[in-house]
Order: sequence, then C-alpha cells, then structure tokens
Amino acid sequence: MRKKLYSLVEKAEKNNSISFFYDWLIMGASILSILPMMFRDVPQEVTEWIETPTVYLLFFDYMLRWFTHDYRRKSTSKWSFVLYPFTPLAIMDLMGILPSLGLLHGSFKAFRLFRLGKLIRYSKSCQRIGNVFKNQKKTLLSVLSIAIAYIFISALIMFVSEPPENFPNFFDALYWATTALTTVGYGDIYPSTQLGKVISMISSIFGVAVIAMPAGIVTAGFLEELNKDFHEGEEKHDEES
Amino acid sequence: MRKKLYSLVEKAEKNNSISFFYDWLIMGASILSILPMMFRDVPQEVTEWIETPTVYLLFFDYMLRWFTHDYRRKSTSKWSFVLYPFTPLAIMDLMGILPSLGLLHGSFKAFRLFRLGKLIRYSKSCQRIGNVFKNQKKTLLSVLSIAIAYIFISALIMFVSEPPENFPNFFDALYWATTALTTVGYGDIYPSTQLGKVISMISSIFGVAVIAMPAGIVTAGFLEELNKDFHEGEEKHDEES
Amino acid sequence: MRKKLYSLVEKAEKNNSISFFYDWLIMGASILSILPMMFRDVPQEVTEWIETPTVYLLFFDYMLRWFTHDYRRKSTSKWSFVLYPFTPLAIMDLMGILPSLGLLHGSFKAFRLFRLGKLIRYSKSCQRIGNVFKNQKKTLLSVLSIAIAYIFISALIMFVSEPPENFPNFFDALYWATTALTTVGYGDIYPSTQLGKVISMISSIFGVAVIAMPAGIVTAGFLEELNKDFHEGEEKHDEES
Amino acid sequence: MRKKLYSLVEKAEKNNSISFFYDWLIMGASILSILPMMFRDVPQEVTEWIETPTVYLLFFDYMLRWFTHDYRRKSTSKWSFVLYPFTPLAIMDLMGILPSLGLLHGSFKAFRLFRLGKLIRYSKSCQRIGNVFKNQKKTLLSVLSIAIAYIFISALIMFVSEPPENFPNFFDALYWATTALTTVGYGDIYPSTQLGKVISMISSIFGVAVIAMPAGIVTAGFLEELNKDFHEGEEKHDEES
Repeated sequence: MRKKLYSLVEKAEKNNSISFFYDWLIMGASILSILPMMFRDVPQEVTEWIETPTVYLLFFDYMLRWFTHDYRRKSTSKWSFVLYPFTPLAIMDLMGILPSLGLLHGSFKAFRLFRLGKLIRYSKSCQRIGNVFKNQKKTLLSVLSIAIAYIFISALIMFVSEPPENFPNFFDALYWATTALTTVGYGDIYPSTQLGKVISMISSIFGVAVIAMPAGIVTAGFLEELNKDFHEGEEKHDEES
Repeated sequence: MRKKLYSLVEKAEKNNSISFFYDWLIMGASILSILPMMFRDVPQEVTEWIETPTVYLLFFDYMLRWFTHDYRRKSTSKWSFVLYPFTPLAIMDLMGILPSLGLLHGSFKAFRLFRLGKLIRYSKSCQRIGNVFKNQKKTLLSVLSIAIAYIFISALIMFVSEPPENFPNFFDALYWATTALTTVGYGDIYPSTQLGKVISMISSIFGVAVIAMPAGIVTAGFLEELNKDFHEGEEKHDEES
Repeated sequence: MRKKLYSLVEKAEKNNSISFFYDWLIMGASILSILPMMFRDVPQEVTEWIETPTVYLLFFDYMLRWFTHDYRRKSTSKWSFVLYPFTPLAIMDLMGILPSLGLLHGSFKAFRLFRLGKLIRYSKSCQRIGNVFKNQKKTLLSVLSIAIAYIFISALIMFVSEPPENFPNFFDALYWATTALTTVGYGDIYPSTQLGKVISMISSIFGVAVIAMPAGIVTAGFLEELNKDFHEGEEKHDEES
Repeated sequence: MRKKLYSLVEKAEKNNSISFFYDWLIMGASILSILPMMFRDVPQEVTEWIETPTVYLLFFDYMLRWFTHDYRRKSTSKWSFVLYPFTPLAIMDLMGILPSLGLLHGSFKAFRLFRLGKLIRYSKSCQRIGNVFKNQKKTLLSVLSIAIAYIFISALIMFVSEPPENFPNFFDALYWATTALTTVGYGDIYPSTQLGKVISMISSIFGVAVIAMPAGIVTAGFLEELNKDFHEGEEKHDEES
C-alpha cells in the first residue's frame, strides 16, 4: 500500500498512467496557483477560488511524500521520517504552502513562488543544472567568491573616491559594481568624476574576465552532464538489444 | 522535361549556367521586393511597379517547386505533391506571396519579409546554422527552456516585489528580465526599490551564466559543423585525385 | 647598397643597431604626429611644426620601401616595383601621408590615423591577430555574414513593426539592432510598443548566441596562433643548443 | 624562537592552533578597519577607536614578517631583510598602514583599502588567480595590449569624427570606447551623428571579439590551475595511503 503511494508521488514510469496523471495534476495545480500573481488587481474571490483547492492538494502531496520518504531513501530506519522536513525540496514545498495557511504575514505572499519548486522534481533539465552545481561545487564556489570579492572591492574603491551625491550609500556602489561588471549597465547610476570614470574603465576591462568565469564553468559542466546522460541512454540501448 | 525544371529550381551545379541565372533571378527579385520596406513614404506606384513582377515570379517559382517536389524527395509516390505545401520552406514562400495577392489584411504587409527565406536555400552559412539547430536540438531545447524559465521566474519575483508604478504589468517585468539577463540593459526600465535592486543583482550574477549557455553550445556546434564540411571537401578532393 | 637599405627598413635583427634606431624613429614619428589629434584647439603652428618633418620622414620611408620591395618579395622581377603601391600596407602608408600633402580635402584629416598602420609592421601581437584573420578567413566570413544578416533582418522587422516616431529611418533600426545584439544597449533608442518589445526580446535571446560566435572563433584562433609561436620558439631553442 | 614566530605569521598548518588564531586575528582586524569606509558620516571617535588598535596590530605583523623573512626565502643571507620592503605584498601592507600613521595627506585615506591585501595570503582562490596571471603573463599581456590598442584607436577615430559637443576631450572618447567595447553601455555618452553611429556599430561588431579574448584566456587558465590543484591533492592522498 505505502509502496504504491510512493510510486504515485514519484515521477511516473512509462507504463504507470495513474502516477502520470498525478504528476500532471500536481504540476498543473502549482502553475495555476501562480497565475494570479502575474496580474495586478485580481479580484479576491478568484484568488481564493484557485488558492483553496490548490493548497489542500499541495499539502496532501507534502504529507504523502513525508509518509513514503523511507522508500525514497531506500532505508528502513525510522530516521527517514524525522529527516524529511529538513530536505531542501521539502522546505521549499512547505514555504510554498505556508502563506496561504494564514500562518505568515501578508507580505510573505511572494513565498507562494516556491511552489514552482515542485516542477524541479519533474524537469530533467532542472535536475541536470542541479547536478552541475553539485559536481562543480568546489570550482563554482571558488570562482563565485572571487567574482563577489571583485564586485565588493570595486564598489568600495568607487564609494570612497566619488562624491556623496553620486553614491549616497555603500549599497548604491555595490549595485553600480554589479550592473557594470555583469555588463548590464542600465545607466541609472554611473560615475561622474574623472577619477570615478578611470576606476570604472579599469574595473570593467579586468572585471569582464572575472565575471565571465562562472559562465564558462557552468556551460562546460552542463555539456559534460548532457554527454553523460546521452552515453547512459546509449548504454541502456545496447544492453536491451 | 520535369527533371530539367527540377535542376533549374535547385541550387545550380557548377556547369549549369541557365540554372545559375535562374537562382540569381529569384534571389535578386526577393531582395529587390524587400528594398521598399527600408524606406518610409515610398510612392505607391514604385511599390506596385516592383511588387507586381516579383510576386508573379515568386508564385511561378512556388509552382515549379511544387510540380517537381517528387524529385527532391527522391520518391515516385504521389504523396510528395500533397506534402509540399506543408514543408517549412514552402510555408515561408507562401506567406511571403500572400500579402501582395490581396488575400491578407493590410497590416500583414510585414509578411513580405518571409521572402528572405528564399535566400536560405542558396546560402551555405544559413544551411550550416540550420544543421547546428537540427543536430543540437535536444541540447539547445534543454538549455533554452532553462534560460526562459530563469527569465520567467526572475520576472515573477521582481513583479511581486516592486511597486506597481515601476512594473505596471507582468509583460514589463518579462521585458526587464530579458534585457537584464541578456545584459543589454537599455535603461528604460529598472528596479527602484532596495529589494528590487538586490533581486536584480542576484539575478544578474547567476543569470549571466545561464543565458551564456546557448551561446557556448551554438558556437561549439557551428565549429563542429564547419570542420565536418572541410573534411568532406578534403575527402572529395582525395577521391578525385 | 640597396640590400643594406632593405635591412634598414625591415624590422631590426637583434644585432643591427642602426636598423633598430630607424625602426624606433619611424614608430616615434608616427605616434608623435597623431598626438595633436587627441586635443581640441591645438594651435596651428604646433601642428605644422610636428607635421612637416613627420610627413617628410614618412614619405622618405615610403620611397625606401618601394625602392627595396624586390628584396621583400624575394623576386628579381621588375614587377615588384609596379605591385608595391597596391599592397595593403603601402596603401595605408600613402593614405596617412596624403592629407598633409594638401592633395586631399580638409575633412580627410582623419586619414592621418592610417599612420598608426606603421606600427603593425613592428608589433608581433598585431601580426598574430592578422594571422588569425588570415587563417580563419573562411570561418570568420561565414560567421560574420550570419551575424550581419541577423542584425539586418532584426532591424528590418523592427523598422516595419514600430511607429515612425521611434525609428524615423532604416539606419536607426540598424543602429538599434547592432547595439542591442552586441548587448551594448546605450538606451538612446529602444522599442516602445508592446510588439516592438516582444521582437526585441526574441531577437536578443537568439541573437546573443549568433553574435557571440565570432568572439569564440577569434579567441580559439588566437590561442592556436600563440601556441604555434611558442612551439616554434622552443624548436629554435632546441636547434641552437 | 624566530622560527616559531615565522610559523605564527605564515598560514597555519592544520594542527597549529595558536598560528590559526593569529591568522584569524589579522584577517579580522583588516576587515574590521575597512568597515567604517562603507558608511558616510561615521563619528570620528568610532573610526579612531577601531583604527588605533588595528594599525598597531598590522604594524606589529609587518615587523614580524620582516624579522622572519629569511625563513620564507629559505635563505640564510642577510639580503633577505633588505629585500623584504620591496616585495609586492610588503608594499601593499605598508600602503595600508601609512595613512593612519599621519604620514600621508588626508585624501590618501583610500589607501587603507590595501589592507584587504592581507587576505590574499590566506585565500587559496586569490592565490590561484594570481598563478593564472603569472603563468599566462605572456598571453595575457599580448591580448591585453591588443584590447587596449583597439579601445584607443576606436576612441581616436570617434574623437576626430564627432562634433566637440559630444566628446569635449579625448578622455571622454576613451571612456565611451571602454564602456561600449566591454558592452557595459551606461548610456551617459554616445555618438549622435550618422558617421559616429556607423563607427560605433563597426567598432562594436569587431570589438566584442577582441575584448572577449582576455575573458576566455583567464577562464581557461583558471580551470587548468584548479585541475592541477585537484591532481596534486589526489597524488598526496595516494602517497599517504
């Protein structure tokens, strides 16, 4: 019985049409409950009308996953049930449900967005990206810390050199550094003094290289991950034939 | 007879000067009929004077290709003739002709741009790019879906967090997310609150990596495609000598 | 005698101090004569004072190179002397001299910038970049033609869809497309209608990949070129020892 | 005794808890003394209260490192002590201390930022980046000189072609070229004439490739450096087991 429930909540195998239906039901409910957030001035009734059944369904799904978590961990220990609420996806699920249970302040409505986390379980692309971040964790952390340090120091130099009118507080300098070094450059904040422009120029020329590194590493990691998946697919094919 | 017509409409072999002339005629007519679109206030007569012979010619070409489509598909089945109007290039050809036949509303004039699709048949670079998209379809779809999902979620978070004045509707948020994450950053729309700026910064740092992935994959695929072409060329050369 | 002159104008060997002095003289004169262009309102006398000796020197250099061109081409044929004025570097040299000879209209003063072409002969980095463009010519032309076609078509679609106020003429549309697809995005020109924004978004997402291709190819080609140079250097070293 | 002091100032081995504490003390003091720079209008007393002990500590650290520099250089020669003040990190340390010793003019307060240089000694990521720049020095200098030359020439062409209102002096043209070619594009300065726009377009299309080269080389070098580190780690592991 519990095993059947587990196969229901898990991503459906090819020939399990009930589980397949359940998967799409959960995905559909998650997306549907996000839709009202894409419009200003949605009448209260419509929101509630969508929200009530969705939240019950998502809460039901949360409970089912908790109830069958020992199968997922392939363990018979009772600890599985204690650990479940602390797994990242379970935390995301809970945060997506809470705002509508009235347990959180009204301004936390945005937390409903965590419901999109449900889709991660069903999307292979998301899992691949997740794997890239897991496998390249060390490299990415190293590169990311350099990038953030570079942004921080550029911001600090600019903040100290420019007059207070341009960068009233340090946050503005950080914002400038981030938009400049990722080359977005909205043009809402930029240096006006000669010295500030020189700092901006030097910072850009070197910074482009530093900030481009995470991009290169993620792309390389993702292509590797894809190749691995294709090879596994081929091997499976070979075994079958 | 029909075979000769087929070799006429196809890209010319080296020694077939009539087919060569025909190719240039079609290309020339396609480009010529686009030229008036590059100017505002072209007198009506000039447009008509260019449009009339072009459309007849393009329609004639469309018919010829339909009439000889069984050769292209290397099949003798009558189905070739039924399938032709549903091939992508044939649909583009038809959409390029329709506006001038008066069968479509005036605001569909822009459809004439589809006539440039004619050039795809004759340009090797375009065919290579087409091959890249065909060969890397799975990878590109996977990466593109991640990129679009990332843009969507960034837009949604920003839309929910910023006051209505900055992002009146969800489309504006999507537009902001796209211009920010592709690092274009026109500066016509950007967050103004502290929270919005923080979201923008985090979104940019991670987003640059996500959005750069399609670029890396297309470049790698295109270089592979070019190498393959060069090797084929060399092999041909070897066989001949 | 003529052979000695040739070794004088060529890039100096390690132990030829006269040729070495001559090289630096020419480089210095080229750069010096450019300097007044970096300031507005340079008094006429200063410009003339710098211009007169420089132009005589550069003209003298031009003549010397012509006079010894048969050594460069390693040919004894008289044709070398006829061909010289049509080599790319000779054309650049001539264009750099002409404005000061009073033979060209005043607004062609900017042609003096061609004098910087002199430096190409002496800079190894410039020669490497030149080699990349020579070796990857086919690939780069193919990629560049796609990039330019993409910019052109994006501009045309935008020009046809947006109201005349935003894009008064086709050139503005081309300018928009170039700044958007190279992700510069100054913010001086951008679409204002819903449709224009959608076109801009789609165009950006795909365009970033297309425009990034030349960058990837040039970088790969340049690294290859550098490796080749290092290996040659090592081999030379091995032979000597 | 001096050997013990040396192991104290050096990055701590795993089992040396006193040295470990000393490392964190120095890092903490460096960061703490930077914090007041991130706020405008910090009361004078607070700054002094933080500054006084920090500077004494950093000066003490500077002296300790000087006193034990022969161990670092693994040399018994007295020259070590003469050379120390001229090593790059020692210069940075001194520049970070000087402003607070009252030996430098008030506007050199920004020099306190050099205290962050202390962190380089303790961060492995920073050392890796340093190694990349050391190993790829030749390549990077070559690429960087091309990038800077390209920026310079683009700026010069633009400066000569545009009317004085847009680019009052050459520095503005340089600033434009840098922000355009690194694709930041704030939008505070851009060409307004037809000719200027054409120059900007051509410059962008080619420039993106040139400016992207350092990025590609740094990324490649950094990945290589990381791989080397991982392999060394594995080898160490193998030897131990």
